[in-house]
Amino acid sequence: MSASWFRRRLLPGVQLPAQRPPRPRASPVPYRRPRFLRGSGSGPCTADASRRPDARPVRSPARGRALPWNAGYAEIINAEKSEFNEDQAACGKLCIRRCTFETEEDQEWLTLCSEEFLMGHYWALFDGHGGPAAAILAANTLHSCLRRQLEAVVEAMAATQPPMHLSGHCVCSSDPQFVEEKGIRAEDLVIGALESAFQECDEVIGRELEASGQMGGCTALVAVSLQGKLYVANAGDSRAILVRRDEVRPLSSEFTPGTERQRIQQLAFVYPELLAGEFTRLEFPRRLKGDDLGQKVLFRDHHMSGWSYKCVEKSDLKYPLIQGQGRQARLLGTLAVSRGLGDHQLTVLDTNIQLKPFLLSVPQVIVLDVDQLELQEEDVVVMATDGLWDVLSNEQVARLVRSFLPGNREDPHRFSELAQMLIHSTQGKDNGPAGEGQVSYDDISVFVIPLHSQGQGSLSH
Amino acid sequence: MSASWFRRRLLPGVQLPAQRPPRPRASPVPYRRPRFLRGSGSGPCTADASRRPDARPVRSPARGRALPWNAGYAEIINAEKSEFNEDQAACGKLCIRRCTFETEEDQEWLTLCSEEFLMGHYWALFDGHGGPAAAILAANTLHSCLRRQLEAVVEAMAATQPPMHLSGHCVCSSDPQFVEEKGIRAEDLVIGALESAFQECDEVIGRELEASGQMGGCTALVAVSLQGKLYVANAGDSRAILVRRDEVRPLSSEFTPGTERQRIQQLAFVYPELLAGEFTRLEFPRRLKGDDLGQKVLFRDHHMSGWSYKCVEKSDLKYPLIQGQGRQARLLGTLAVSRGLGDHQLTVLDTNIQLKPFLLSVPQVIVLDVDQLELQEEDVVVMATDGLWDVLSNEQVARLVRSFLPGNREDPHRFSELAQMLIHSTQGKDNGPAGEGQVSYDDISVFVIPLHSQGQGSLSH
Repeated sequence: MSASWFRRRLLPGVQLPAQRPPRPRASPVPYRRPRFLRGSGSGPCTADASRRPDARPVRSPARGRALPWNAGYAEIINAEKSEFNEDQAACGKLCIRRCTFETEEDQEWLTLCSEEFLMGHYWALFDGHGGPAAAILAANTLHSCLRRQLEAVVEAMAATQPPMHLSGHCVCSSDPQFVEEKGIRAEDLVIGALESAFQECDEVIGRELEASGQMGGCTALVAVSLQGKLYVANAGDSRAILVRRDEVRPLSSEFTPGTERQRIQQLAFVYPELLAGEFTRLEFPRRLKGDDLGQKVLFRDHHMSGWSYKCVEKSDLKYPLIQGQGRQARLLGTLAVSRGLGDHQLTVLDTNIQLKPFLLSVPQVIVLDVDQLELQEEDVVVMATDGLWDVLSNEQVARLVRSFLPGNREDPHRFSELAQMLIHSTQGKDNGPAGEGQVSYDDISVFVIPLHSQGQGSLSH
Repeated sequence: MSASWFRRRLLPGVQLPAQRPPRPRASPVPYRRPRFLRGSGSGPCTADASRRPDARPVRSPARGRALPWNAGYAEIINAEKSEFNEDQAACGKLCIRRCTFETEEDQEWLTLCSEEFLMGHYWALFDGHGGPAAAILAANTLHSCLRRQLEAVVEAMAATQPPMHLSGHCVCSSDPQFVEEKGIRAEDLVIGALESAFQECDEVIGRELEASGQMGGCTALVAVSLQGKLYVANAGDSRAILVRRDEVRPLSSEFTPGTERQRIQQLAFVYPELLAGEFTRLEFPRRLKGDDLGQKVLFRDHHMSGWSYKCVEKSDLKYPLIQGQGRQARLLGTLAVSRGLGDHQLTVLDTNIQLKPFLLSVPQVIVLDVDQLELQEEDVVVMATDGLWDVLSNEQVARLVRSFLPGNREDPHRFSELAQMLIHSTQGKDNGPAGEGQVSYDDISVFVIPLHSQGQGSLSH
């Protein structure tokens, strides 16, 4: 959440913007698939020709096209709500410029030393809602925001301990309260850069959609390799896991109205005007109705993990701020995720009630110290949008990975084949070795990132 | 945080109370040690006679006096700031009455069935600050609040799945949004009861201290055994751990300005008036000074886990909302804990700036399913105030437990002996088998609860 945006929109006495999307001043964001899918065939990639699950095409990059670290990718359009795939993906090399200036202040000019690059890699999945525009903008923009944010801290990242000031001046004084320094590590700067990049990208999407009169939002799941570490930043309900021979480790957690109940209720407690008298922030075991008035009923408020009883009052009969539970939970009856990018204009149907104040664009960042792992050839990170995890558990995905990779060591495209196989496993009982028969009707995008090849092909890490 | 209290004190346009403690209308809370220490000797229990560490007395219950589950207890006064011990302790049996009424509504009277009791046990430590009064009130009061809260839910706790209403009426309708029920378990009601009891106790302490013109606050760490489970509720920086032969498991986490940085900064972001222009909510690596103006400096705001750079402005030179780090961190330069009971009148020295809005009385509750453990005779829970954990790690305490218990199987007082030995280990290198030589100068109180004896001596569990 941007402080200035929050204050502008939320503080008392400030007018809420109009509920309708503004008139377009720019042309709409054009629909497209990821660049790295060019040449992979199968036409305009819309779902309208293939409604039967077994006929839907699964797409992967063309055989000659290698992604960073030889990662695999596959996607499928399942959504019946739109002819477009609302998922988007991006990946590439991050070249972070490092401008060092000579520090002699007496000179009248600064000497720009030779540019150096810190190299990293980047994989990202965006799961759109309310149209594909926000996900497309995020796929076009987030890596640039991240590069800019990393360039602002790259000099400090290279130091053993980040300096207090970028100038490198020593600022210690004799007063002990001034000299206390906190043990800030290089990775804390990368985490900060990812947090800032997500927020910057969110602001860009807000401006662009406003200008083009479009709407929509998206989740964002990003993996960045830098200096021997993999940073996984997540805002939404996509998921990344590490799969090794003897280990399955979550690298993200999901942010939904259910998992962020207390944060969301807390905001409604502090700013009750955000609910415009139409919703109740309290959670009940089920929707209450007139007959329940005066009865004792279980409830939870923002400060409670457990449940307690209260007497049902009239205001408790309002529609709940968070309705349903688990993957069915909806924020203000509208949205299934509580973090992501975009949605600046989203309101509850037929009302002025805005969703954005309850949404965070800040990701949670989990750091995997790849250099500390004793890597095996078949250690991979699997990143996928929620359509995959709706029907496959982490353990099921790990079993599929372990059953596929050892038999396909010679296949240079095996990681894309694996990504395709994971998607096929969500298409019903005849279509995959999981054989669980569960079917996903959502768009699905999958990256499979082999860790063993890290650094191969990159200039430094 | 009580919603009504919060609104009364914090919402815009509401007057803040006077900064001085009000005039007393009741007599002050009398100082005392826990009842179960009666008859244990060693005089008036003040520290003034024994300033040298090796001469300070460690107190335990008299030999004939058994605590619930034969738990051990010991305490020491270390504080040099007061002649009183600011720690307090309480333990006992919880008898939760269960009144069942016949449900035939046509009758003109209700039939009270025979009273049943649900039995539990209770151990609690309170670490006071700003005087012993709040801790004494908490030791006198919290168990009554908890009993009352548990009585409100005991009927539902006994059911396999808690009913939506205590009346047990079926309220399903044909509309599916009305019939969805959440899987609420009996333990969620106990957690809710603990959360409510802490808040109720906090309100009682606020009223009592206001009436007697006293001040102060305390942390609270409570263990409750009920229906085969141990519930550990913590608000503050005390700690409970489970020690078994092959396992050390934390049963609580600490709530300090450092661990709750983001929650505290968030509140200051939403209500900047709470800082009265005297503090900055931003975190910096060290205190900034005039020379830093205009420099780029690392900082963190409420939404950030990582660090980023900003340009130093004049407002950044203010005193930080959270100063220092780790156990040295102070909230508004004043308080080392961010959750607890009391402190309703506490202000920053020489200002009107209140601490209470930043403090939570709600505990975090961790549930240990004791019935699911394959209990060994030497499995214990160690609860202690922060003075112990300042100088001993979880692993060090576990080593001391494992080295002491096997050799003392025949001693009926071995758990109190162990509690005393743990305290002796904090008094310098000659005084304990840990031999680390670290000395604690804080008050320390310790319970050692043997899990193997659970249910022995209680009517049911």
